[in-house]
Amino acid sequence: MIKVGVVGGTGYTGVELLRLLLRHPNATVTVITSRGEAGRRLDHLFPSLLGACELAFTDPADADFSACDVVFFATPHNVAMREVPALLDRGIRVIDLSADFRLNNVALWEQWYGETHAAPALCDEAVYGLPELHRDAIRDARLVACPGCYPTAVQLGFLPLLEAGVVDSAQLIASCGSGISGAGRQAKLGSLLTEAGESVSAYSVAGHRHLPEIEQGLAVMTDLPVQLTFVPHLIPMSRGIHATLFAPLVEKKSDLQGLFEARYADEPCVQVLPTGMHPATRNVRGANTCQLSVAQPQGRDTVVVMSVIDNLVKGAAGQAVQVMNLMFQLAETNGLDDIALAP
Amino acid sequence: MIKVGVVGGTGYTGVELLRLLLRHPNATVTVITSRGEAGRRLDHLFPSLLGACELAFTDPADADFSACDVVFFATPHNVAMREVPALLDRGIRVIDLSADFRLNNVALWEQWYGETHAAPALCDEAVYGLPELHRDAIRDARLVACPGCYPTAVQLGFLPLLEAGVVDSAQLIASCGSGISGAGRQAKLGSLLTEAGESVSAYSVAGHRHLPEIEQGLAVMTDLPVQLTFVPHLIPMSRGIHATLFAPLVEKKSDLQGLFEARYADEPCVQVLPTGMHPATRNVRGANTCQLSVAQPQGRDTVVVMSVIDNLVKGAAGQAVQVMNLMFQLAETNGLDDIALAP
Amino acid sequence: MIKVGVVGGTGYTGVELLRLLLRHPNATVTVITSRGEAGRRLDHLFPSLLGACELAFTDPADADFSACDVVFFATPHNVAMREVPALLDRGIRVIDLSADFRLNNVALWEQWYGETHAAPALCDEAVYGLPELHRDAIRDARLVACPGCYPTAVQLGFLPLLEAGVVDSAQLIASCGSGISGAGRQAKLGSLLTEAGESVSAYSVAGHRHLPEIEQGLAVMTDLPVQLTFVPHLIPMSRGIHATLFAPLVEKKSDLQGLFEARYADEPCVQVLPTGMHPATRNVRGANTCQLSVAQPQGRDTVVVMSVIDNLVKGAAGQAVQVMNLMFQLAETNGLDDIALAP
Amino acid sequence: MIKVGVVGGTGYTGVELLRLLLRHPNATVTVITSRGEAGRRLDHLFPSLLGACELAFTDPADADFSACDVVFFATPHNVAMREVPALLDRGIRVIDLSADFRLNNVALWEQWYGETHAAPALCDEAVYGLPELHRDAIRDARLVACPGCYPTAVQLGFLPLLEAGVVDSAQLIASCGSGISGAGRQAKLGSLLTEAGESVSAYSVAGHRHLPEIEQGLAVMTDLPVQLTFVPHLIPMSRGIHATLFAPLVEKKSDLQGLFEARYADEPCVQVLPTGMHPATRNVRGANTCQLSVAQPQGRDTVVVMSVIDNLVKGAAGQAVQVMNLMFQLAETNGLDDIALAP
Repeated sequence: MIKVGVVGGTGYTGVELLRLLLRHPNATVTVITSRGEAGRRLDHLFPSLLGACELAFTDPADADFSACDVVFFATPHNVAMREVPALLDRGIRVIDLSADFRLNNVALWEQWYGETHAAPALCDEAVYGLPELHRDAIRDARLVACPGCYPTAVQLGFLPLLEAGVVDSAQLIASCGSGISGAGRQAKLGSLLTEAGESVSAYSVAGHRHLPEIEQGLAVMTDLPVQLTFVPHLIPMSRGIHATLFAPLVEKKSDLQGLFEARYADEPCVQVLPTGMHPATRNVRGANTCQLSVAQPQGRDTVVVMSVIDNLVKGAAGQAVQVMNLMFQLAETNGLDDIALAP
Repeated sequence: MIKVGVVGGTGYTGVELLRLLLRHPNATVTVITSRGEAGRRLDHLFPSLLGACELAFTDPADADFSACDVVFFATPHNVAMREVPALLDRGIRVIDLSADFRLNNVALWEQWYGETHAAPALCDEAVYGLPELHRDAIRDARLVACPGCYPTAVQLGFLPLLEAGVVDSAQLIASCGSGISGAGRQAKLGSLLTEAGESVSAYSVAGHRHLPEIEQGLAVMTDLPVQLTFVPHLIPMSRGIHATLFAPLVEKKSDLQGLFEARYADEPCVQVLPTGMHPATRNVRGANTCQLSVAQPQGRDTVVVMSVIDNLVKGAAGQAVQVMNLMFQLAETNGLDDIALAP
Repeated sequence: MIKVGVVGGTGYTGVELLRLLLRHPNATVTVITSRGEAGRRLDHLFPSLLGACELAFTDPADADFSACDVVFFATPHNVAMREVPALLDRGIRVIDLSADFRLNNVALWEQWYGETHAAPALCDEAVYGLPELHRDAIRDARLVACPGCYPTAVQLGFLPLLEAGVVDSAQLIASCGSGISGAGRQAKLGSLLTEAGESVSAYSVAGHRHLPEIEQGLAVMTDLPVQLTFVPHLIPMSRGIHATLFAPLVEKKSDLQGLFEARYADEPCVQVLPTGMHPATRNVRGANTCQLSVAQPQGRDTVVVMSVIDNLVKGAAGQAVQVMNLMFQLAETNGLDDIALAP
Repeated sequence: MIKVGVVGGTGYTGVELLRLLLRHPNATVTVITSRGEAGRRLDHLFPSLLGACELAFTDPADADFSACDVVFFATPHNVAMREVPALLDRGIRVIDLSADFRLNNVALWEQWYGETHAAPALCDEAVYGLPELHRDAIRDARLVACPGCYPTAVQLGFLPLLEAGVVDSAQLIASCGSGISGAGRQAKLGSLLTEAGESVSAYSVAGHRHLPEIEQGLAVMTDLPVQLTFVPHLIPMSRGIHATLFAPLVEKKSDLQGLFEARYADEPCVQVLPTGMHPATRNVRGANTCQLSVAQPQGRDTVVVMSVIDNLVKGAAGQAVQVMNLMFQLAETNGLDDIALAP
């Protein structure tokens, strides 16, 4: 059994990680920390865990990770970068679900996050935890930076097109929508049911922190320049990311459906829908799956890709467990066989 | 492996049963029928099943259940009662999720369902599939009638009070709410998001078919006369039943919290919340669990019980799997270890 | 034109009051205060008001109400009781939407609100602003305490039964549900879409502050002792109150439908639905209307009443405008002719 | 008073039209037809109309429109084109909310709607009812074809850019989302709360009937070729359209905010938000308003416009009333002063 520690288990990413790890056949959670909830039983904070867990939160100051094989960070950004170096020094591997190590370019990180990076030397070592692109590097990594939710959906959608060089990578557009859990388990006015319910709106159009992460990831797939217009929207639902991607075709005769099916034929967590079907976030709710469709409306020169994930699973906690499975030489989908909860 | 057949897999109860059975460690689904969808792959109708199942629907006329150990009926009422006798005759056990065998009193059934019962002789043999009350009888049953969703939530809520004789069983009130999946996967005007969303209303106040079923079940728990006022409501959500139960206390000094905790101490699928917590349907979404609280507001003479289940799981498909586990001498919660999906 | 001041316009009750007053043919809003938003234009905080209003919030310290005919308080409790006396002294009438003057019994108020009342002498003078019960007193009042949302729905539902003496007033039950706007426009964890959405739960079962207010109101309708068991629930929607009321019939042959229709025949804001129809909150969304049904399930001894309002309109701002109309000798429904927004 | 007839009043567009017309100061509804509901009172079908209307539906065969000044068609396509010619012949003006007369090109209409047009001669005469583009023509029209919901939001968003010639009209993209009321008040599986709730998905990506209508409308704004990629999505809410529009800038130094503000300075039903604000559908719910924002993310070459309307109001019934006001020389916003219902 892999001994697991979790730093920060009181957010939605944290409780989702617990949902997956508590039932994982090869892992056992031994420590979980929270500054605000230290001493409280997890199942009293999250009654969905009743019967599945008798742990209580530990104060970070008292947490002893020395017996852990791996520590997950399910914290806001700016925490992991301060604590990870000491863990690595003690030989403990780290899977970071936050944004601290997602950008290799430290200057870019500091520009978008508005502060000095506390562990710049690790930014380059950290492996970007998208198994569909970096599976081998993840296996050997000491430190994995798990992708954000929008970046996962967008990168998996553009991947076959960019690798095959059939679209103009300098004119990419991503119009995306996220459920409200993407805003975290925090008391924010804009996340109230009375504010976010029964409404749609774009946000952060001037610049969202996932933009540089996505552009960095897309640049791995092609030698040509990459430029993306990224508009995220709030959707009145709890979970789910829907990415609608647009790109001008530069090579028009491609069998786009075949291209996608071939690229993902061996990927256990990516499913290309039959032609004519449209992915819906409900069909991946709770599952570590990305479902994709590709279309070329009216036979014109713009390709459209639709990509859906559950932001808390394939966009966060599930992907982190998939990464852990790879790091510890387990079958990649161990503990990730949930079928989506629909309706 | 238990060989399982499913009659009628295109409703919400059916797809939920498949979600559970396809991952069950001791069962394998071999036949699934649908008149309307014969020949179609399940995962094309329900893309949430993509990657989990390669079965297609069989026309009922062509279905061969002879190799099955058990057949589930996930049909509207009026189907099972016509087909069950032949299956039982061939030694195949049956778990019926419909209403056909829930009432022992054939005349009462015919009055509420407005038609002649096709297999009256089986009404008395059929075991009522509420494990918390009829565990032993279920183990040996040929035919189990699984309880309805409201009846499960209401009976589990009143059970400790009636068994202990601390309330007046002739003045019971159940004010309940159900998610819209309770109305089935059928194109009904009243189930549209635009009709049922952002609204609450009561329905069937003059008489709901679950009333006689609940009263029959409550009468098992006490020798005194039982009378229930039952008002169901539509709640703007997909899944979940919330039952709020009221009863006049006849014995006032009871330790109600202790009474509930003692009654359910050994029940794997019922959880009594600590004093002061209120159950929420979100905390059992997707899980085969009933969560309960009991209160005595203002210390007055009316006891209030709150009981929540997922109508599709503990109120239907999950309970049916729990019943199957009992019938085949498996651990009662095999394949039912899902942690609720919250948020 | 009536010159209107508003204290506290940044909550949901406040913005709803503005929605109604800005289009009222006989009123003009001249001052609106907010400590936190002083100087900000209302339509920048609430873009729904764009084009309808050019006012900005005034700091309470700078607010001059001397030209106002009436001042509305749309504040949390504990504000009005400190500021109302000075306004009354200057001859300005007050309509208080908060809880400060709803209870005549000062000791009871102090017990439920946990603090000393700042204007106990006014508690007895304040008229309870339910026009269906206190129309004449409202016309002449200096200070009106508008009812809470649950109290409005529950009192209007029980009123015909208690006035006619056909139920046992000592065994009343109210099982109610409220949309999340009832929790106010405040960043609370429990009001997040991810917490309150797709779920139902009861709350404050041990004691909700509307209980003493309702019991006080019901006691006006009968000489017999009144006792109510009141269980409120959170419903996953923005607006609406649904009250399901239960009472034991003491006089069984009543024509309950006729009783309700007669009682409300001349009430412009209460509608009794035809027999067999169930009220739904969607049908009163945005309207200053209470819709009611009465039933006697199975012909047994328990009467069931269903009562719906929009908590922000007939449960708050609309009722306050109805009160203003009465106080200023206008037609009672002036400015209140909105038809409900359905769907 | 304008005497109004309504053909087809049982859909969402119909009931919304009634909500507006029943309170319109210059109009009176005299006849309303429905094949299926003939003889039934409107307020029994739509209890939101209780107290506002005593009309009953008339069978179309019995309907006498001879006293009407104008007849609205709130029918599915394929009805108006059969009935309009006779009305026009009798001097009755017609406002058609359906798609029958939206395309001037009869061949294009027949291609997209898959049938022969019954009144091709009128396709050219019909005025396209977007007041912001065709105000004068509407004033004099006998027959107005009201725009679809997506076309209204998309055209108003692109209008300033195309008129000013600052974008490449051959590379336009519209990623739009609609509330479920856009699918009509019909019992469709895909519109169930359990199917459409808590999920997002694109639909009709291969070709939606609003595409030719939008392209026809955009072509009016520019002499250059127009080509649009249009992807509609279902959003889990009742009302609202959100259009996110993308276009390559060909002239980069434009003051885009100023361009939009200038274009719409005198439009009573279009509001350009201050820089940095994002429109949300909730802020126009129930109002006959389009709210817009424009942005140029990262200062790059793609302009992004966000445009929101209530699909049932500015996208259908409200716009039809605005058209009626113009046709009858009334103030353009008479009866359209509703402030949006938020929350």
